[in-house]
Amino acid sequence: MAGIINKKKNEISNDLGLGTRDTGRRGVNKDGSFNVERTGIPKFRYYEIYHDLISMSWKKFILLVLLSYGFVNLLFAGIYYFIGMEHLSGIAENASESERFMEAFFFSSQTLTTLGYGRIAPVGALASSVAAIESMLGLLGFALATGLLYGRFSRPQARILFSHNILVAPYRDHTGLMFRIVNQRSNQLIEVEAEVTLSYQEKGKNARSFAALGLERNRINLFPLSWTVVHPINEESPFYGMSEKDLRETEAEIIILIKAFDDTFSQTVYSRSSYQMSELVWGSKFLPMFSRAESGKTLVDLRLIDAMEKVQLPVNAKVLE
Amino acid sequence: MAGIINKKKNEISNDLGLGTRDTGRRGVNKDGSFNVERTGIPKFRYYEIYHDLISMSWKKFILLVLLSYGFVNLLFAGIYYFIGMEHLSGIAENASESERFMEAFFFSSQTLTTLGYGRIAPVGALASSVAAIESMLGLLGFALATGLLYGRFSRPQARILFSHNILVAPYRDHTGLMFRIVNQRSNQLIEVEAEVTLSYQEKGKNARSFAALGLERNRINLFPLSWTVVHPINEESPFYGMSEKDLRETEAEIIILIKAFDDTFSQTVYSRSSYQMSELVWGSKFLPMFSRAESGKTLVDLRLIDAMEKVQLPVNAKVLE
Amino acid sequence: MAGIINKKKNEISNDLGLGTRDTGRRGVNKDGSFNVERTGIPKFRYYEIYHDLISMSWKKFILLVLLSYGFVNLLFAGIYYFIGMEHLSGIAENASESERFMEAFFFSSQTLTTLGYGRIAPVGALASSVAAIESMLGLLGFALATGLLYGRFSRPQARILFSHNILVAPYRDHTGLMFRIVNQRSNQLIEVEAEVTLSYQEKGKNARSFAALGLERNRINLFPLSWTVVHPINEESPFYGMSEKDLRETEAEIIILIKAFDDTFSQTVYSRSSYQMSELVWGSKFLPMFSRAESGKTLVDLRLIDAMEKVQLPVNAKVLE
Amino acid sequence: MAGIINKKKNEISNDLGLGTRDTGRRGVNKDGSFNVERTGIPKFRYYEIYHDLISMSWKKFILLVLLSYGFVNLLFAGIYYFIGMEHLSGIAENASESERFMEAFFFSSQTLTTLGYGRIAPVGALASSVAAIESMLGLLGFALATGLLYGRFSRPQARILFSHNILVAPYRDHTGLMFRIVNQRSNQLIEVEAEVTLSYQEKGKNARSFAALGLERNRINLFPLSWTVVHPINEESPFYGMSEKDLRETEAEIIILIKAFDDTFSQTVYSRSSYQMSELVWGSKFLPMFSRAESGKTLVDLRLIDAMEKVQLPVNAKVLE
Repeated sequence: MAGIINKKKNEISNDLGLGTRDTGRRGVNKDGSFNVERTGIPKFRYYEIYHDLISMSWKKFILLVLLSYGFVNLLFAGIYYFIGMEHLSGIAENASESERFMEAFFFSSQTLTTLGYGRIAPVGALASSVAAIESMLGLLGFALATGLLYGRFSRPQARILFSHNILVAPYRDHTGLMFRIVNQRSNQLIEVEAEVTLSYQEKGKNARSFAALGLERNRINLFPLSWTVVHPINEESPFYGMSEKDLRETEAEIIILIKAFDDTFSQTVYSRSSYQMSELVWGSKFLPMFSRAESGKTLVDLRLIDAMEKVQLPVNAKVLE
Repeated sequence: MAGIINKKKNEISNDLGLGTRDTGRRGVNKDGSFNVERTGIPKFRYYEIYHDLISMSWKKFILLVLLSYGFVNLLFAGIYYFIGMEHLSGIAENASESERFMEAFFFSSQTLTTLGYGRIAPVGALASSVAAIESMLGLLGFALATGLLYGRFSRPQARILFSHNILVAPYRDHTGLMFRIVNQRSNQLIEVEAEVTLSYQEKGKNARSFAALGLERNRINLFPLSWTVVHPINEESPFYGMSEKDLRETEAEIIILIKAFDDTFSQTVYSRSSYQMSELVWGSKFLPMFSRAESGKTLVDLRLIDAMEKVQLPVNAKVLE
Repeated sequence: MAGIINKKKNEISNDLGLGTRDTGRRGVNKDGSFNVERTGIPKFRYYEIYHDLISMSWKKFILLVLLSYGFVNLLFAGIYYFIGMEHLSGIAENASESERFMEAFFFSSQTLTTLGYGRIAPVGALASSVAAIESMLGLLGFALATGLLYGRFSRPQARILFSHNILVAPYRDHTGLMFRIVNQRSNQLIEVEAEVTLSYQEKGKNARSFAALGLERNRINLFPLSWTVVHPINEESPFYGMSEKDLRETEAEIIILIKAFDDTFSQTVYSRSSYQMSELVWGSKFLPMFSRAESGKTLVDLRLIDAMEKVQLPVNAKVLE
Repeated sequence: MAGIINKKKNEISNDLGLGTRDTGRRGVNKDGSFNVERTGIPKFRYYEIYHDLISMSWKKFILLVLLSYGFVNLLFAGIYYFIGMEHLSGIAENASESERFMEAFFFSSQTLTTLGYGRIAPVGALASSVAAIESMLGLLGFALATGLLYGRFSRPQARILFSHNILVAPYRDHTGLMFRIVNQRSNQLIEVEAEVTLSYQEKGKNARSFAALGLERNRINLFPLSWTVVHPINEESPFYGMSEKDLRETEAEIIILIKAFDDTFSQTVYSRSSYQMSELVWGSKFLPMFSRAESGKTLVDLRLIDAMEKVQLPVNAKVLE
């Protein structure tokens, strides 16, 4: 019965929203992103501006702020220059045209940031009006930029470290599918919940099926150490009775959704990941990640997230070839 | 039995808060707003200011900011002018009255934005006091304006695209009422829930009744693709045994409430919509919106939200005239 | 059986946290505040500053901002004056001492708000250092003030209007205890839940007891109109079989907790209120608050929240004296 | 049966995430922090910056802001000095080198805060460019600093006062384990939930076990007064039938997680604490913390949180030695 998910034991109870057409690829990447591209969307969607600016890379964001700052200054420098430099006081009489433009540029930057040294100052209605508008735009624009900057810093995000492999290890008198998570951040996570879903392709069908995998427990109250999430391979499990070879042949993908309350940000955060059968280790168990520190405290070593050792699967385990 | 909802099968379990008086109109518009006007409310309610400013159109908001800026500057220009222009240094001796007022106006704008070039500066207690107050008001006022600007940008809002029609399509060995949704935004939505409610008018009664419509599933974990929400027309359904003509004559309205967790904003968002019987398509099914991209990724085309094809309803479907 | 709550039918299932000692007073006021004073708390608790500033009255808040601004300017003016006015450039030689102090005061305000006209400017290390520190404090201080200002404006708060009276009206084939709520704000409230608790004093006991009152429904999805919350006085009700006189003699208090999701703020909001037996109207029912507007829309008139009419209680109602 | 938890009655239903290895120490400290140290984490994690800055002590935070301000000014002063002081106008001809550097320093501070008096102003492309960049950095940097300052002030945090001891007191016809909590803040807490978990070491095992402790009630709606949380020591309790000596010998730790909705911040807040057997008081009960004030209000005295009196445990209590 190589590679055939026990469908009768496997209630399709949990649509992940990944669709049931087989796409022959991992649905959820290790970092939790989806293997999905979207098309048919208008190029410019004003309601995406915030999302794009808050989720772009830091490098891109900083570059964008600098370029915008330069561009807006250039633009206003052009306007002041066009209005006539005689409407800006404090510019040397004998200045060359390029020097004049440069003075306009720096006057613009001093207006946009509301610095206003005053060495150069607008005289007359037109230049003063442009400066009044520029300073207002500067306040509004920098409010957006600094809001985004702070928003990026303070954005609540879970950083859950997942074990690289998913193990089949002894569990009670049978076996269990196990992976391990640990919180990478200093924030306390509370009421951590795990949902584990199996995504697999039925033989002879061009479609993916989904099944929720039952867990030993799907919620812990506090999460200061590591948590080994266990799917018991018992009679209820779709993997019940499968050999290592069977399992690998299913081309199954195991999709993880972790939900927690972040006690620092007072907000709910999520983390996603997935395992493929190539990441399965048969007959190993995790070694503890923690020891007692000299201070008497429990010491958790995050480098041990993948520490495991070979182990004999129970002879009475109902995993038969 | 044309157009008569099977009331005995139809537990009125879900009051939408839309009232039970028939108003002869759609209760919920396609965009999720309500066909409701409110009266008897005081014209000015200070606790509505924020709501009004955050939800008005961008055009209105920008206009309001510009007008307020101009108005406040006019007001303070008036005050400085009234105090006497001799209390502002830096104004040309030979300036006309209108030039003096203009200088007061631009001095005001330079004070409100805390630019403070200093070409014009207050001298003496009265003008200095007004400037001190204006700069404080400027800081507070621009904080409100920029806070609102940022609040408008960063406001969490679901943008769910609903299929234009609701279909009666084959579902298992009978039929189902189906509509389709897709996320228009780049944000990931997680734990998406749908609640579908039927609103209809009972024959011979001047009142609307409500009934929850059972769904194949009312929650998906992840939502990277589309989700076809299905109400199975089985023995439990109020539509059980109805013909197309029956259905259309009910003048029923189907009201949708979608709830999701927005992973970018870390907040819960809602989306509403509704279908009327004029938007019903009998005997069609949705075509997939996704295909495999050359990159191997799943490609979702949002333009296909309404893609459907005619389909024969199952002969053994319990939909009889 | 005058005034005796049917205790056997009345499972004490819902401790409101109001304690069980009788205090002879309303526990929850009409506006939702508690009749509770707290003592034994340290006078100054730094973690209450934010709460105090965000919840004080607008009048107090504005006064506090103005006074702080004046005080800080006075303080720094004193420091500049103490350092010596010769370290501020731009002050007239022949200025009197009081004029000098005034100049120091306005220089301070121009520094605190980062206006910096420059007519007066610091010269030398000491005055420049103080100005450098003052401008930094100005930025931080105004950030707090403007943050609080915006926080006060944008604070999510439900404004639920409760009917002034609680009615005993016909409900199905018996009677029900009813009150009515409507949303005063333009925000849409979603998934509105009501919890109604009875607080009463048992005869011969110096203690208050609590009981949850069952509701016809305790949740509505959408809340564009009004919602009449109904506690059916059936066999399960602690009021079952009571006459008007009985009811009034119980000195019971009915405490309401409304919970909703505010769709504008994307946050959960709560509202509390209570009814005493003096607010009970026996044998009346609410009149509709809505009619059809000429536009075809449903028109809700908030002034009709208390509209009711006398009604005969059903003869077969199980309310016997 | 001294000190042996009745394991058969004790379903291990509640993994606290504290691990099952015995570490011989309290798992959760009185203040709710964990006795856990973490290692194997990269020294610098950019996503921890916000967390570190928001949760460090006020003293540290203020020092950091001041030092950063000084350091950035020093840095830019160095740059201006390096560029050449002749590019800053307004500096006295006869100034010494150290005076020149000092002028550069204060010019920098006036630029960073966007004060811009203008007594000293940049002349020429290089100095003006540096000033343009510095003022932009100033705006961004102060936005971060002021955002953090406000974030620290407005951070939602429960301040629940726990009674110092946990009592064994009469409860109905047997006994109960009781502790008491009260809200230290002026914020209203709503829908307060308690979860109480027993952590103990099984005899002869080098591991900790966990068990949820059932509560009389685990949720109250409103929390204006105190709440005595009661674990009834009945047949379901792991402590059933234990004497005081037995209890103390278990070396059990009782871990508390309180969850509530903060009505001022509109956010969910958590509070943690724990009790060890050394904090157990056998045969005492809490005295009320509230009395009637002259105003008729209920008066809560937080200093009475630990007020208790000796009490005879019921003779028919099933607590036998």
